[in-house]
Amino acid sequence: MEKGILISFEGGEACGKTSQIKRLVSYLKEKGIEVVTSKEPGGTPLGEAVRNILLHSNLEICPRAEALLFNASRVQNVLDVIKPALEQGKVVILDRFYDSTYAYEGYAGNLEVEELRPIIDFAICGAVPDLTFLLDIDFDEALRRKNADENLKNLDRFESKGKAYHEKVRSGFLQLAKDNAERFCVIDAKKPREEVFEEIKKEIEKRFDIKD
Amino acid sequence: MEKGILISFEGGEACGKTSQIKRLVSYLKEKGIEVVTSKEPGGTPLGEAVRNILLHSNLEICPRAEALLFNASRVQNVLDVIKPALEQGKVVILDRFYDSTYAYEGYAGNLEVEELRPIIDFAICGAVPDLTFLLDIDFDEALRRKNADENLKNLDRFESKGKAYHEKVRSGFLQLAKDNAERFCVIDAKKPREEVFEEIKKEIEKRFDIKD
Repeated sequence: MEKGILISFEGGEACGKTSQIKRLVSYLKEKGIEVVTSKEPGGTPLGEAVRNILLHSNLEICPRAEALLFNASRVQNVLDVIKPALEQGKVVILDRFYDSTYAYEGYAGNLEVEELRPIIDFAICGAVPDLTFLLDIDFDEALRRKNADENLKNLDRFESKGKAYHEKVRSGFLQLAKDNAERFCVIDAKKPREEVFEEIKKEIEKRFDIKD
Repeated sequence: MEKGILISFEGGEACGKTSQIKRLVSYLKEKGIEVVTSKEPGGTPLGEAVRNILLHSNLEICPRAEALLFNASRVQNVLDVIKPALEQGKVVILDRFYDSTYAYEGYAGNLEVEELRPIIDFAICGAVPDLTFLLDIDFDEALRRKNADENLKNLDRFESKGKAYHEKVRSGFLQLAKDNAERFCVIDAKKPREEVFEEIKKEIEKRFDIKD
């Protein structure tokens, strides 16, 4: 059976995931590789409904409910989108995956990683990324980017949580990268976008047999 | 610290939970007991939003996502409504609780009870019912009731799943009652409502120190 490649992008707000994913998709497509992208929460009609609750509602949501909602969106996406694409041998690129649950609801939301693990395992049904890029950025730089970009000015639920929260998210991601060193590639996202992409490309070429 | 009493009602569609809960609430209130009722999914603004997705949307939802959504609604309700009421020494009566997840998503949705357990444990934060009434009813009788009652004619996602599904739900509930015999009280819900309520009252009086 053919087996695709699963790549996730992780990092705090305004770390540049979206723009780097776009570049990577173009790069892979130019090589004739079939690519599927997806984002969390979202990816399916259910995921979009959950995304609306999580990011754009004013409802009171405790960290435990938050974690369960993200994973509800996740499992529908894993079963409907991610696994079928992998089974067809495609490259699947995710704008956030389960490491975000560990970082946001775990390290920053004060839930235990060990409590989150069975929920994430239940949701991902074995879909572990072959490679995870962490675009590491500090809060002040992220804020500077947000203030400079009109598109980033409408803060969602998470973006509006303040510095202490986002510093916990960042150190959570760095801890995850340390604990899963084989899977993670940490990139300093303060660097110019072109340099960041060069590092991504180099890592992809090092790890996978990407033919022209 | 005062400690309230947590009572859940479980059973298939049209088993009469709602009407029996109403009777029980009146009975307890007449005795001057403070009662809080809640239902699943729902109970909080987040719960209502999740309820809309689960019962009244046409979105494709796999059993795993279903289980996670119910538990997202559940934990918000446990932390915001159920636990605070119990801490104030109130009687909390629930129209469905986590046994429904085992019965619907587990026994009828083909998920393993052992896979669901950590998710439910994550959501209930230790809130285990002191007593669970299972109003046991077979599918044909439930259907007869539905056809006789205008209010029950608009079928939601679960109600419209057909006989084989609902028979699995029923046998799942009976298995749960067997596995948790101390906690469960199974009542034949085919009996007239007055008789069913007499059994509920008797069980309540036997188990708890309900003073006039």
